[in-house]
Amino acid sequence: MSTTVKAYGAVNATDPLVPLTIERRDVGPHDVLIDIDYAGICHSDIHTIRGDWGPIAYPQVVGHEIVGRIAQIGSAVTKHRVGDTVGVGCQSNSCHVCAQCLQGHDQYCLAGNTQTYGSVDPADGTITQGGYSQTVVTNEDYVLVIPAGLDPAKAAPLLCAGITTYSPLKHWNAGPGVRVGVVGLGGLGHMGVKLAVALGAEVTVLSRGTKKKADALAFGATRYVDTTDADALRELRGGLDLIVNTVSAGLDIATYLGLLDVDGALVNVGAPAEPFTVPAFSLIPARRTLAGSTTGGIPEIQEMLEFCAAHGIHPETELIGVDQINDAWERVVSADVRYRFVIDTETFA
Amino acid sequence: MSTTVKAYGAVNATDPLVPLTIERRDVGPHDVLIDIDYAGICHSDIHTIRGDWGPIAYPQVVGHEIVGRIAQIGSAVTKHRVGDTVGVGCQSNSCHVCAQCLQGHDQYCLAGNTQTYGSVDPADGTITQGGYSQTVVTNEDYVLVIPAGLDPAKAAPLLCAGITTYSPLKHWNAGPGVRVGVVGLGGLGHMGVKLAVALGAEVTVLSRGTKKKADALAFGATRYVDTTDADALRELRGGLDLIVNTVSAGLDIATYLGLLDVDGALVNVGAPAEPFTVPAFSLIPARRTLAGSTTGGIPEIQEMLEFCAAHGIHPETELIGVDQINDAWERVVSADVRYRFVIDTETFA
Repeated sequence: MSTTVKAYGAVNATDPLVPLTIERRDVGPHDVLIDIDYAGICHSDIHTIRGDWGPIAYPQVVGHEIVGRIAQIGSAVTKHRVGDTVGVGCQSNSCHVCAQCLQGHDQYCLAGNTQTYGSVDPADGTITQGGYSQTVVTNEDYVLVIPAGLDPAKAAPLLCAGITTYSPLKHWNAGPGVRVGVVGLGGLGHMGVKLAVALGAEVTVLSRGTKKKADALAFGATRYVDTTDADALRELRGGLDLIVNTVSAGLDIATYLGLLDVDGALVNVGAPAEPFTVPAFSLIPARRTLAGSTTGGIPEIQEMLEFCAAHGIHPETELIGVDQINDAWERVVSADVRYRFVIDTETFA
Repeated sequence: MSTTVKAYGAVNATDPLVPLTIERRDVGPHDVLIDIDYAGICHSDIHTIRGDWGPIAYPQVVGHEIVGRIAQIGSAVTKHRVGDTVGVGCQSNSCHVCAQCLQGHDQYCLAGNTQTYGSVDPADGTITQGGYSQTVVTNEDYVLVIPAGLDPAKAAPLLCAGITTYSPLKHWNAGPGVRVGVVGLGGLGHMGVKLAVALGAEVTVLSRGTKKKADALAFGATRYVDTTDADALRELRGGLDLIVNTVSAGLDIATYLGLLDVDGALVNVGAPAEPFTVPAFSLIPARRTLAGSTTGGIPEIQEMLEFCAAHGIHPETELIGVDQINDAWERVVSADVRYRFVIDTETFA
């Protein structure tokens, strides 16, 4: 038994998304059924459908920034109640028992976690389908509580763009006295700036051109560097402690490593298809590190949501209807969005 | 005024080393004059003379693993006495006042420290000349005390090979419960194994072929992986917390990153001329770091010497006379040394 719901998804790697119907499994003892209100559009959605990160099965519905209200709970659910405003992010399950899961780091589950779309669902063996849809059924342990202080229409992008920048900022100790650089001012980057500022760090935005300078400063950055300005980059050498790189296009990584002080870290959260070219001497003489980080664990996502509610932080969003999704994807690819599209899923009806 | 002493050095990038005389400056108020007894041969000596790391001025005497006895001290010297057995390592001076020097991290001096050879000496503006020589004059702050428990003939390689592996092992918390991999079993690698074992870590040696397996186990490693054995490498995936890479030839770095568990670090102390090719996905899904580290600060070198004395750790050395230096260099280049040549500088007389 399952329930048929409306969705919007891909039937192959290249054509525009189309209206689809998908099946949602029955609500198991530990599941909740969520009526989706909002779904953010993440660049990962596009990379996945296009096959940039490997072949996938079609049809596929994406979307891993989901906010809605609980419509039904399973018989054994203790963490949530019908009517609660909740969210689902990138992962919808994990093994629960590995060393990483036991620490609450299910994003690094050693058995491989279940992604909200494109994974085999351990509950029924189907391929998980994402949030560009009317409902979703999710294990209660992977459902986040949206705090009362957050506008649900703006909370969705926190579930990927928010946590993906919050987690490395926390792990690498962004805070007062720490000079943080954020490379790229898109969906992830603009959240990285707002979060790093709220954590007390001194934030420099590095982005191409000057079009986004005013926004960067409005978000709380104290410095903006146009990355096409070689002199400005040279002046910044050794001047940062932590760089969060949100750009998934190729980057002259040695130049960016050179902006780090001794013991500085450059953390990639964007994932370019081409490998980085890293001279040993860009690391050795200043004990620098090049790192990567992916999303965050469920406890850390909840912490981030509370942090955003407490500090009044929300992403800049543009609310769209279902018929605008394909246009929105084109605008994401051409970086023409300030700064995150959110689908109003009422428009599915 | 200066003193002329015998040395052995290079007159260009390609010819064999030849006997030379060099000038040592007079002993200033804060200097000590050291009669050199032993000088280790480091692969860096060869890279430097060959111009692998950039052009240099000739003639140049190299050697930055120096042990001897103090023959004279300056009027203001308080840290050392005539007759003391002491050492000089890679750096012979630094700015004393930058954020790194103030923490004792003179290896990362922000003004650039004075290398024991090939740097401009702040004392007199000449190019510093290294330890393949009868004497050296060094600022007292950069002179290490060789503890009584260490054999001076074997202590010299600790001043580069020892500290260059000790420093990252300590910085990245090698100790009980930590699974350390050492890539390459040469001058640096064999010290890395002995030091990591003494720190309590579980050590895996990764080296080409099986010729050095018995040595690796004798040094205390619990596992040896032949890096030409793809199956053995596959079995080790995710099985290490820290890898110290001592190899300065190119390496398929993505494969080695794949051996790290979540939050693992691969630290390069060898410096290949070609840059590393680093796929973003070798870092991101397990929050791994690729790092570099160079030698150690003076306080840490002293700590390492005391640690070696306390734990009975010494490098495996082959003592040679001055007329064997050129042969020794050829054997270093062809990795035919177990594991470090030390020049007996009495043979200069």
